Amino acid sequence: MMIAEEVKVLAFDIFGTVVDWHGSIVREMAQLHPAVDGDAFARAWRTGYKPAMARVASGELGWTLIDDLHRIILDDILPRFGLQDLDEAQRRHLNKVWHRLDAWPDAVEGLTRLKRKYTICTLSNGNIGLLTNMAKRAGLPWDCVLSAEVFHAYKPDPRTYLGVAKVFDVQPREVMLVAAHHDDLAGARACGLRTAYVERPLEFGAAQPKDVTPREGNDFHCRDLVGVAQALGA
Amino acid sequence: MMIAEEVKVLAFDIFGTVVDWHGSIVREMAQLHPAVDGDAFARAWRTGYKPAMARVASGELGWTLIDDLHRIILDDILPRFGLQDLDEAQRRHLNKVWHRLDAWPDAVEGLTRLKRKYTICTLSNGNIGLLTNMAKRAGLPWDCVLSAEVFHAYKPDPRTYLGVAKVFDVQPREVMLVAAHHDDLAGARACGLRTAYVERPLEFGAAQPKDVTPREGNDFHCRDLVGVAQALGA
Repeated sequence: MMIAEEVKVLAFDIFGTVVDWHGSIVREMAQLHPAVDGDAFARAWRTGYKPAMARVASGELGWTLIDDLHRIILDDILPRFGLQDLDEAQRRHLNKVWHRLDAWPDAVEGLTRLKRKYTICTLSNGNIGLLTNMAKRAGLPWDCVLSAEVFHAYKPDPRTYLGVAKVFDVQPREVMLVAAHHDDLAGARACGLRTAYVERPLEFGAAQPKDVTPREGNDFHCRDLVGVAQALGA
Repeated sequence: MMIAEEVKVLAFDIFGTVVDWHGSIVREMAQLHPAVDGDAFARAWRTGYKPAMARVASGELGWTLIDDLHRIILDDILPRFGLQDLDEAQRRHLNKVWHRLDAWPDAVEGLTRLKRKYTICTLSNGNIGLLTNMAKRAGLPWDCVLSAEVFHAYKPDPRTYLGVAKVFDVQPREVMLVAAHHDDLAGARACGLRTAYVERPLEFGAAQPKDVTPREGNDFHCRDLVGVAQALGA
C-alpha cells in the first residue's frame, strides 16, 4: 500500500517545525527590551531546553512542564543579558512568549490541506496549555493537541511516539511524524512510525543557518508543510 | 467583574450535552440491526456506563479507557438483544458508534460563537481518540481535547475539574463547565468552577423525557449551546 494511503495520523513537532521560535523571540525582545541582543538571547534560552529535559528524564527533577522548565532557564540567563531586575510579572509575561510564537508562513496552508485527508495532531514536548494558546493565536487547525504532558514523558521517549498510535487505536506505521530535527525523527522511526523531514534552514536565525542536506531513512524530505501536503497528495 | 468577562476557558461535557448519544445509536442500530429495539439497546448500553467507571474508581479495575469499558458493557448486553452471534469485527465496529455520534443541531453554531471569545475544550470521560474522531466527523471546533485520559481520573473526581484550570494556568473561577447533568456540575462547583446547565430533555429519547427544571447553584441555565453563547455575550 502506498504510504499516503496507509498513514492515518500525522503528528507534528512544533518548535522549529511549525512555528519560528527564534524569529518570534527576536521580534518580541526588540519591542520589550531593545537593548538586548535578541538573537543571542533566543539561542541561549533554547540551548537550556535539552539539558533541562534531561534533568527530568534522569529523575533529578520530578515531572515538570515546559512552562516551568522555560522559567528556570529564563531566570538563569537573565543576568547575562542585563535583565536581572525584571520583576515577577515581567518574567511571567516574557516566559509566555513561547505561547505567542508565530507560525512559519506555510504552516496554516499546509496543515489545512493535510487536515482534509488525515487526523493532524501536535506531538511536542511543550505543555498542553502552551500548545493550545499558540494554536489559537496562530490559527493552527489541530484535530487534537497531544503533548509530552499527556504521556508524562519527553520525546524521544518511545512512550510519546507509541502513545500517539495508542490514542488513535492504529498501528505505529499508520502514524507519520513530521519534524525538522533528525533525533526526533530517528526516535519515531525506531518505534515503527513513518517520518517526514522538514527543512527549516533559518530555525536558529540567519546568522546560524542549519544544514538541511537530505539524510537516509526518512520517507519524505520536504521544504515546508505545503511540501508535506504535496508529498502526501493532500 | 461580570462572569462573562472573568471566565477564560469553557469546558464541555460531551455525551448528552454536545452530542446526542441516544438518537445516534438508535439511528445506527436501525441500519445495522433493524430487528433490535434501538431505544432500549441505547439505554441499556448507557446504563452500564457509571457502574463500569465506578469499578475503575474503586480500584477493582485498573485505569481503563471508555472505549474498553464500552466494549465490556456491549459484550454483556448483546445476548439480551439477540446479538450474541456478532463476530469480533462487528463488535469492534459497533463499539465505535460512540466515535460517530451526531452533534445536537445547535452545537456547531454555539461552539463557533463561543470559540471567538473563549478557549473551548472538551472535559469528558470519553477517551482522547474517541473525542477527536467525533469532533472531526461532526465538525466540533475545539481548541483542545481534554479527557479523563489526560488526568487518569473520571469525573466527578476533582482532579478533572482542577486539571482544566491547571492546564491553562488560570484560577478555577476562570473556568466554566457546561453540562446537561447536575452531578457533573455539582462536582465542578465544589472545585470553584463556574457552571452552566444545558437542557437536553430528549437525552434519553422521546419515550423517557428528562426533567430539566432549573435548579439552584448554576450560574446559567440555558436551553442549548446557542443559549450559552447568548448568556455569555458571544
